Amino acid sequence: MTPLRILKRQLPYRPTERMNVVSYPIRDIVMEAKREEAKGKKMIYLNIGDPPQYGFKPFTVIADKVKSALDESYKGYAPSEGDEQFRKTVAKIEKCNPDDVFAVAGLTEGIDFFFHAFVGFGEKILLPNPVYPLYLSKAKQFEGESVFYRHDANGQIDVMHLAKKIEGAKAIVIINPNNPLGSVYSEKNLSEVVELCAENDVPIFYDGSYDQLIFEGKPVDFRKIARGTVPFIYGSSLSKVFCYPGARIGWVTFHGDKWQEVKNAFFLLCNQRLSVNWEYQKAAAAALTDPSYPAYLAEIKKKLVERRDTFVKMARDLPLSFPVPSGAFYAFIKIETKKWKKDIEFIRAALQKGVVFVPGSGFGRQEDGVYFRTTFLPEPNVIEEAFTKIRRIL
Amino acid sequence: MTPLRILKRQLPYRPTERMNVVSYPIRDIVMEAKREEAKGKKMIYLNIGDPPQYGFKPFTVIADKVKSALDESYKGYAPSEGDEQFRKTVAKIEKCNPDDVFAVAGLTEGIDFFFHAFVGFGEKILLPNPVYPLYLSKAKQFEGESVFYRHDANGQIDVMHLAKKIEGAKAIVIINPNNPLGSVYSEKNLSEVVELCAENDVPIFYDGSYDQLIFEGKPVDFRKIARGTVPFIYGSSLSKVFCYPGARIGWVTFHGDKWQEVKNAFFLLCNQRLSVNWEYQKAAAAALTDPSYPAYLAEIKKKLVERRDTFVKMARDLPLSFPVPSGAFYAFIKIETKKWKKDIEFIRAALQKGVVFVPGSGFGRQEDGVYFRTTFLPEPNVIEEAFTKIRRIL
Amino acid sequence: MTPLRILKRQLPYRPTERMNVVSYPIRDIVMEAKREEAKGKKMIYLNIGDPPQYGFKPFTVIADKVKSALDESYKGYAPSEGDEQFRKTVAKIEKCNPDDVFAVAGLTEGIDFFFHAFVGFGEKILLPNPVYPLYLSKAKQFEGESVFYRHDANGQIDVMHLAKKIEGAKAIVIINPNNPLGSVYSEKNLSEVVELCAENDVPIFYDGSYDQLIFEGKPVDFRKIARGTVPFIYGSSLSKVFCYPGARIGWVTFHGDKWQEVKNAFFLLCNQRLSVNWEYQKAAAAALTDPSYPAYLAEIKKKLVERRDTFVKMARDLPLSFPVPSGAFYAFIKIETKKWKKDIEFIRAALQKGVVFVPGSGFGRQEDGVYFRTTFLPEPNVIEEAFTKIRRIL
Amino acid sequence: MTPLRILKRQLPYRPTERMNVVSYPIRDIVMEAKREEAKGKKMIYLNIGDPPQYGFKPFTVIADKVKSALDESYKGYAPSEGDEQFRKTVAKIEKCNPDDVFAVAGLTEGIDFFFHAFVGFGEKILLPNPVYPLYLSKAKQFEGESVFYRHDANGQIDVMHLAKKIEGAKAIVIINPNNPLGSVYSEKNLSEVVELCAENDVPIFYDGSYDQLIFEGKPVDFRKIARGTVPFIYGSSLSKVFCYPGARIGWVTFHGDKWQEVKNAFFLLCNQRLSVNWEYQKAAAAALTDPSYPAYLAEIKKKLVERRDTFVKMARDLPLSFPVPSGAFYAFIKIETKKWKKDIEFIRAALQKGVVFVPGSGFGRQEDGVYFRTTFLPEPNVIEEAFTKIRRIL
Repeated sequence: MTPLRILKRQLPYRPTERMNVVSYPIRDIVMEAKREEAKGKKMIYLNIGDPPQYGFKPFTVIADKVKSALDESYKGYAPSEGDEQFRKTVAKIEKCNPDDVFAVAGLTEGIDFFFHAFVGFGEKILLPNPVYPLYLSKAKQFEGESVFYRHDANGQIDVMHLAKKIEGAKAIVIINPNNPLGSVYSEKNLSEVVELCAENDVPIFYDGSYDQLIFEGKPVDFRKIARGTVPFIYGSSLSKVFCYPGARIGWVTFHGDKWQEVKNAFFLLCNQRLSVNWEYQKAAAAALTDPSYPAYLAEIKKKLVERRDTFVKMARDLPLSFPVPSGAFYAFIKIETKKWKKDIEFIRAALQKGVVFVPGSGFGRQEDGVYFRTTFLPEPNVIEEAFTKIRRIL
Repeated sequence: MTPLRILKRQLPYRPTERMNVVSYPIRDIVMEAKREEAKGKKMIYLNIGDPPQYGFKPFTVIADKVKSALDESYKGYAPSEGDEQFRKTVAKIEKCNPDDVFAVAGLTEGIDFFFHAFVGFGEKILLPNPVYPLYLSKAKQFEGESVFYRHDANGQIDVMHLAKKIEGAKAIVIINPNNPLGSVYSEKNLSEVVELCAENDVPIFYDGSYDQLIFEGKPVDFRKIARGTVPFIYGSSLSKVFCYPGARIGWVTFHGDKWQEVKNAFFLLCNQRLSVNWEYQKAAAAALTDPSYPAYLAEIKKKLVERRDTFVKMARDLPLSFPVPSGAFYAFIKIETKKWKKDIEFIRAALQKGVVFVPGSGFGRQEDGVYFRTTFLPEPNVIEEAFTKIRRIL
Repeated sequence: MTPLRILKRQLPYRPTERMNVVSYPIRDIVMEAKREEAKGKKMIYLNIGDPPQYGFKPFTVIADKVKSALDESYKGYAPSEGDEQFRKTVAKIEKCNPDDVFAVAGLTEGIDFFFHAFVGFGEKILLPNPVYPLYLSKAKQFEGESVFYRHDANGQIDVMHLAKKIEGAKAIVIINPNNPLGSVYSEKNLSEVVELCAENDVPIFYDGSYDQLIFEGKPVDFRKIARGTVPFIYGSSLSKVFCYPGARIGWVTFHGDKWQEVKNAFFLLCNQRLSVNWEYQKAAAAALTDPSYPAYLAEIKKKLVERRDTFVKMARDLPLSFPVPSGAFYAFIKIETKKWKKDIEFIRAALQKGVVFVPGSGFGRQEDGVYFRTTFLPEPNVIEEAFTKIRRIL
Repeated sequence: MTPLRILKRQLPYRPTERMNVVSYPIRDIVMEAKREEAKGKKMIYLNIGDPPQYGFKPFTVIADKVKSALDESYKGYAPSEGDEQFRKTVAKIEKCNPDDVFAVAGLTEGIDFFFHAFVGFGEKILLPNPVYPLYLSKAKQFEGESVFYRHDANGQIDVMHLAKKIEGAKAIVIINPNNPLGSVYSEKNLSEVVELCAENDVPIFYDGSYDQLIFEGKPVDFRKIARGTVPFIYGSSLSKVFCYPGARIGWVTFHGDKWQEVKNAFFLLCNQRLSVNWEYQKAAAAALTDPSYPAYLAEIKKKLVERRDTFVKMARDLPLSFPVPSGAFYAFIKIETKKWKKDIEFIRAALQKGVVFVPGSGFGRQEDGVYFRTTFLPEPNVIEEAFTKIRRIL
């Protein structure tokens, strides 16, 4: 059939079937926003959790230390698994062995490694609903079977619901504070989850990317709750708690026995991508132990609380419902009018008004209504402007 | 069967089947070397192409520019696909559009994206034999079918052999100068390959990681040879030609039409891993256009030629055969004695003598004998010491 | 770590990760039932749609014709794609070309081929909810993304719901009469679905395994509804409409253009498994054109209606709700008490009473309650006995 | 990009990437042959091992017993794993437990189940070279890594070569007599292989499809050689040793401990495809124990030897080399002229002369020359005609 062949030759090359499951809704929406911006519309970006973009300065120790490292000799490939000093520093904080620590290019890479090394074809992986989209996408890419556990109205894990789903799971992902809910799980809530995991021999991947960003009280010490009870992996990074997402430095630590073969697998994955920037690892080690951090953190939290309050005040006047965020810098919002059938229709209407949100469907299935995620990182007046703008379309 | 269950509960967690195909022999051998070192043996590492480790200073413009960028505001997530200025700079050099340029965390990531986005299940991908191991590993991971093309005794591509293999291939990988052979393909050789690709509608992935490191004459301009004839992707990085592997900055550029959907796929993959370090992208843009680079490069090449000559002089006295490297900093060596049945046995004997090589099998199938790869990056006296040490075991 | 190795050596060999997604709940429950039976309990099997087991005689033409074929020379491999006469016969009935017909080892094999050849990694496949379990399992095995469409209270396809889900689907599966619902889609309902598919360029896999078994009126002619509007694949077999599941003979036919490459793929899959029993294909060809079939079918339907009525009478007295089946020989039943949290608990309680049902979860997700499937194939007194037995546990 | 979309809408539907690895060269060549035949050319088919096509009558007990079974009540789904009586019969012959026996739709299905259940992603599976093509295709489909072991000039397994390849293999496939070589492994040869497998804890898949068809001496009893030494799976069928390929009945038996989980996996795979034709299973049970079989077999072997001798006489005069077949009904032939660069060119030239062979590349990589497979099943005068025809092109 010659004509068909000719037709095909003219066609662009085809990406692989694997690309069917690659998506990142938090950034994919930006393409649409940029098109509007190109037409001259001013845009308020509430889609991404990028603190420096909204006036949050990264912890200055990092840049200082990168500079001094640049004058030293860390220019070759760093050890694949991480700089020795960096691993020791993290191990001390995490109360584990340096061999249990891996340096990663942002926790993004750590999550990729976790699925690659641990979640096999058809294996059940428990995810929170709503969930940070990368987990969804990685579960699909690595052919795991995502099973969701619910939250109650206060954004706590619905342990009864989880109990019905947990049997036979390979692992459970916990994100605390939760992205996108902004809720902070209580020690009691976490203890119940840990107990359930121990009973069912289900290890935990604990995403602590936001764990210092808690507006009231002190962060729970998950290591204390889980240690000796259930094996777990902990991950965090410089991106959020040090307000330096551009650094691309994160870390993953293994806790409990039974991990030796999975750690070997991480080692091989690290080898295969050679290394993470060395100077920034040196800087991360310095930042993690610097005595000025508590003061820095207090300042960040103060600003976040102020902006959260502005957001809540603005949103409460609108037909919107959500658990009031007590950590991180997001809220996951349900639209309480019947106007929108699909979240993407609302998102596009908001784009027309000049405000960029992320559609709720990107965070997992929400069958009971239409949701979206916002960040409340911007200055109060920007938040006020954004919610004033969308008032008309709600 | 209760006892079996109990047995299993005591076992460590199992990594996934996918881990069966993850390996990186260049680094994996280091684990064995470290064990020897721990016993007090002094080791000469000839396994890895890491210039700073052997006294090659990175191009200083990079560190300087990172420092100044640190004083500016590039601390948030960079644009996923790359800093605008960086893309423009690369586009100017590569004579393409900025939209055709993607910033990657070392070409390592670019290779991963290429396989992920373009090489589908069971699709045939032509690789040089021998080949840089990452290509082998990625082809397996992404379930492509690796088919190898040979080199002649001078390390040029055996075009007749390639002609028999090319039909139906999704793409061909060309590495020039070749790693591990150290050979530089002539313009005539490349033109013949390009012609074959054009006839068979097979696009090219051209790995130019070492393309400035050519000991005689000027680098061929592959863009000129291929443009208008066959669509291709070009990739390079700061790692080798700027002697800064630790930077983790590379770039991939698309040439020719037909790539629009594959570029979209790259865009999605970039989005999913968020971004590459921003300050280093700024530095890369500066380095690529700095007028002092030719003088820097000449200095590097002078050193490399001197070390290559020392290596050749040492190796010629031994029962070893190889094409004399005319680029990059590796040689791929056949052992011309019958003493060793498997390369790993030779590698381990060399480890016992205190020298670390990479087994030839890591670079693809070699059915006609036992091979290993060495780098000739170290100072001449170190090269002399290493080859004196292994003389006794050959 | 020697002890660990020794431990592993003693362990049984491990099946592959792929086995994680292989299940067939309709038969898997039998293993539990057999254990009860072994203890001496009498079991009533309402799990499987196997007419000969309950006194439905297969159409006698088939056995007669197999016998005569055995005296002829059909003992080698049949043509992979099917016996020529069989293909011609089916083509005449289905109003397509003999080249559009493939003989398969039961529609089970046809469904496997459909997913293998047409549903790629991550591609969206629309399935009815509830759905015959094999579709679920094959979608997982071939890494498609199952998306479900709902039924209304009468067991008709909820077209509004489907409209929200259809965008971007690779194909939609329609089973009519539906297994497990027993509902028969009206011509109007199907026309609306076809229209939606045409608008979205979504081809249809139409499972007509039960299409003659309609209790009132005449079967719709789906070919008429769809032809010229949307490309579709039709499949059926000897198993249900000729009451001969043991024959393992089915057929798949392609309708509309655009299928040429997929038909080539079916051809290759047929080649790879060599052939289907030849004598039974000859018998199928005879059965499909035998003039006594209408009388046979009328007899079968009369019996089915009688048993359906008995089932409905018995079930209506219990706290159970379901659309009254108007075709096939199943009902999908919701338990209207709060007694059972999980369907498997009810199934096991029924097993204890000596009745074997299939848990509703095997037919897809049912979030609003606890369901099970029963067949009403057995003699009226057996149905009465079964539902009397489970009365006590409801 | 509207025009591109329109282009795509007109294109035929695309099969999946998986189809890239589905091929069956033994039958795929038939499509080309049929095209020649359609032009009026007479074809001699030496491509397929289909005894009834060449005047070998199936063992008559089978047809007789199918007929009587048709008068009984085996018309429903047979037990998924196989008819009870059939399993008991096979178990008695194979000296295993009935629970170790599975009925399959030809050994073709058994091979599919073996790879599906046991050979995981990236796991190494040792295959003979040359090998029956289905093993190659299944290894690719199920993402195993095929590693080949060689034969010596007499068609015996090259144990030294195997010893270098065996480490880390998940299993080894042995086909005895070998298809396509026609060689029969000696007891000594098999014992050495078994020993090697035992040392390396590598279980065996033993394909005994042709095991009665040995021209001199008695078949080795592989069970005796292997039992107690290494776990193995044995498979055979009615296709070759009873000359009834169209029956589509085979069996797989498990030997040794460690198989319990893999047997469970087979059970699930059996469930999922429901059952194998019941009447033919009854017939197979009868055939396997019928006292007239030895006489039947002797007759078959006599004919085969006569045809083998004719083939050898004809082929010896030509520039062809091959181990003289001592079993089965194939020869694997190397062309000893330089005329052909690729086997497909020779195959097509032979097609032009009216003779259908299978290209050697379908049986695995042969780097040292051009090969093809022939069967010597036809009547002596047909064999003579075929080899006379191709004399001119050699």
